[in-house]
Amino acid sequence: MSKLYVVGIGPGNYENMTQRALQTLEASDVIAGYTVYVELVRPHFPQKEFFTTAMRQEVDRVKAALAMAAEGKNVAMVCSGDGGVYGMSGLAEELAPAYPGVEVETVPGVSAMLSGAAILGAPLMHDFAVISLSDLLTPWETIEKRLRAAAQADFVICIYNPSSHKRRDHLKRACDVVLEFASPETVCGIARNIGREGESTVLMTLAQLREAETDMFSTVFIGNSQTKNIGGKMVTPRGYRHE
Amino acid sequence: MSKLYVVGIGPGNYENMTQRALQTLEASDVIAGYTVYVELVRPHFPQKEFFTTAMRQEVDRVKAALAMAAEGKNVAMVCSGDGGVYGMSGLAEELAPAYPGVEVETVPGVSAMLSGAAILGAPLMHDFAVISLSDLLTPWETIEKRLRAAAQADFVICIYNPSSHKRRDHLKRACDVVLEFASPETVCGIARNIGREGESTVLMTLAQLREAETDMFSTVFIGNSQTKNIGGKMVTPRGYRHE
Repeated sequence: MSKLYVVGIGPGNYENMTQRALQTLEASDVIAGYTVYVELVRPHFPQKEFFTTAMRQEVDRVKAALAMAAEGKNVAMVCSGDGGVYGMSGLAEELAPAYPGVEVETVPGVSAMLSGAAILGAPLMHDFAVISLSDLLTPWETIEKRLRAAAQADFVICIYNPSSHKRRDHLKRACDVVLEFASPETVCGIARNIGREGESTVLMTLAQLREAETDMFSTVFIGNSQTKNIGGKMVTPRGYRHE
Repeated sequence: MSKLYVVGIGPGNYENMTQRALQTLEASDVIAGYTVYVELVRPHFPQKEFFTTAMRQEVDRVKAALAMAAEGKNVAMVCSGDGGVYGMSGLAEELAPAYPGVEVETVPGVSAMLSGAAILGAPLMHDFAVISLSDLLTPWETIEKRLRAAAQADFVICIYNPSSHKRRDHLKRACDVVLEFASPETVCGIARNIGREGESTVLMTLAQLREAETDMFSTVFIGNSQTKNIGGKMVTPRGYRHE
């Protein structure tokens, strides 16, 4: 039984990788993945064989990695954050049955919701929903329906893929849906370039978030009705009494 | 400026801790936290000072840790998983303003939703909601409202604190809410003792989950309408075409 390891490398800096992720990369013959993520780990493993593919070639990338594993190679496919959240773990599990003798194992990592929350303060201390605004694979109607349900039930909302070159107004449209239920004063935050050069955070109201610029390196947090700005940190109380 | 570090140690085994978490514990004078979590890291740092408190003493625990930091000690408060998800980060941020000169920094870790998803397969590949069934700090009506909203909008649902000695029927009641919208055949999974002695996973239908026994070391996953059982793995397709 050979294995394809789907390795979450966390937000991008070496320090936020788990020891298990490092050990898995060290033990691998081939490190595969989307070019940008492979380049984040390459300096630490210069002696490895690398297999990189461009964006949007997910199916080909995973098939190639499974084929290498079927040949007996020890293959580690890297994903930013965690491979199990909008990453490659699902596709690897879906495609694996066509490669008998290959098993998929996900090595979890620190997803952007966690690393972004950490630098913003503590926005995810209570129930939350995670929603991607990318409509490449999901109809926008489904995304809106989920935003509406999350806002109506007062979830904190963590947004992945808030915008791209082709989807400049998605965050604005998402804010409009949330504003049907939430106050324009709701505390929100954006974490950018988490764990990388240029890391930054900014807090703002939901009304301001509607006008904010984001990019593919931004993770967006919309507070619930209890979320506070405490000295510049975004904090959702769990409900402990402490007066 | 002294710091209180809230350190997520992941599911419990040393390998799933990030390097940054390890470095933070190594650099600390005092390791504080709930006894069970402190005992998980104590063997690796036998030379440290330890400060443990029992369950339900969260406010006292965090105040004591902040007071030690205010005295100039380098304090690391450990949480299982990630301190920013039902952990101590929020309370630390709420209480910190009373300790001038002390700043709180969260060192993120692999939360049970990620480590549990990894051993089950890939259940969180699409939009998901994270809900705790503990009604110690949250009215049950709020929990039900969020379960209902999440089920109605076809989120995958990850459930923390599915039961306790005092709340034996919470998971059953939660399943009944989800069953208002979801098929009894919905693919579900339970991850137990993740990264620890006795780690196990089991897949079942939503109808079966309603009758399942869980404990405080269980994390429960309810699939969305697309989630599949692929050879014993729980997999939610993202939507890539691959025929």
